[in-house]
Amino acid sequence: MRLRNKPWAEEFLSQHPEIVIQNPEQYKGNWQKAFGNDHPLHIEVGTGKGQFITGMALQNPDINYIGIELYTSVIVSALEKIIDSNTPPNLRLLKVNGADLEKYFQKNDVSRVYLNFSDPWPKTRHAKRRLTHEGFLKLYESILIDNGEIHFKTDNRGLFEYSLISMSEYGMLLKYVSLDLHANMPEDNIMTEYEEKFSAKGQPIYRLESQFISGK
Amino acid sequence: MRLRNKPWAEEFLSQHPEIVIQNPEQYKGNWQKAFGNDHPLHIEVGTGKGQFITGMALQNPDINYIGIELYTSVIVSALEKIIDSNTPPNLRLLKVNGADLEKYFQKNDVSRVYLNFSDPWPKTRHAKRRLTHEGFLKLYESILIDNGEIHFKTDNRGLFEYSLISMSEYGMLLKYVSLDLHANMPEDNIMTEYEEKFSAKGQPIYRLESQFISGK
Repeated sequence: MRLRNKPWAEEFLSQHPEIVIQNPEQYKGNWQKAFGNDHPLHIEVGTGKGQFITGMALQNPDINYIGIELYTSVIVSALEKIIDSNTPPNLRLLKVNGADLEKYFQKNDVSRVYLNFSDPWPKTRHAKRRLTHEGFLKLYESILIDNGEIHFKTDNRGLFEYSLISMSEYGMLLKYVSLDLHANMPEDNIMTEYEEKFSAKGQPIYRLESQFISGK
Repeated sequence: MRLRNKPWAEEFLSQHPEIVIQNPEQYKGNWQKAFGNDHPLHIEVGTGKGQFITGMALQNPDINYIGIELYTSVIVSALEKIIDSNTPPNLRLLKVNGADLEKYFQKNDVSRVYLNFSDPWPKTRHAKRRLTHEGFLKLYESILIDNGEIHFKTDNRGLFEYSLISMSEYGMLLKYVSLDLHANMPEDNIMTEYEEKFSAKGQPIYRLESQFISGK
């Protein structure tokens, strides 16, 4: 993702508090208040330009979604997409660092975490930054319901191999795995921008669903 | 594997008791006697024409190997290969059904199970025949040492996806996974006949190592 300078971006974000959550700390333990209902909450960590989370929100009106993205130059594209999609009432954006999730969420706040085409951080010395590293798994578990799930897609073979082992070592249960998602495309698959790009080149898309096991 | 009629095959097998184990029941719990040493025992279930197990035996003289193969027309090729390789003293063949392993091995007899390019049995109603089905995992665990390992290679995506989930559900730990073995070929990789054929076509070879966790 090329980070272009967008001086108007911060102003644009602040003009849409109905989508971009302001002062998210206030909702910790009480996200029902943000959405005005008690539907399950699914979050995407690293939501990028927002095609996936917007598509999911439109497809599943009885689930609440929050797309989390740190970079201003990217999250504005997600905001534009949401406005262009008539602002689904079950969708919000949160402009924070994924490593700080515990500031805004507590145990049982979240039912599912989506990770899509996360940065692979291929160098071993950067392994801790991978969103499926033990440190992040611990973080997700601390805000998820018991037996909460991670749904993860990537085109990056190395990251997928690493994630399978990391999740296994953490004691998670692998519930679903596809090593070529587009060979047997699930009907309800919502593609991300990267997924469209890489699958068009014929690269396999990897996908898994895993579950935390309570009592571990 | 085309099963050609080889009328001379049974006779050929019986002429080589130094390789093809006779009356294997006698060694149950006492495989040191068959090899004349107490080295760890690794078995390959479905050894086919024997290129893998022969290569492994030559590469690792301090490990004992047994290649298990039911089909006469296939195991004779393995026998020929072993004789052509000057009959490594740490290698035997066992002509039995893999589903009957418990007749010949007991807990702690085996340190590692190799599965290579096993029949994928793609139809759901045949899932129980897959060599990574829960029923087989239970069988392997019953003859392996504590924390014993399965090392598995295949070109079949569906079987590999199934196996990852089956092993996770069984409570096994995933220790290694490659979704394209030949992209980063380990130096000590011994290729099977199928592996040579499919990788030459550019198909990815999948490989994993998993471990039973004692106390589960």
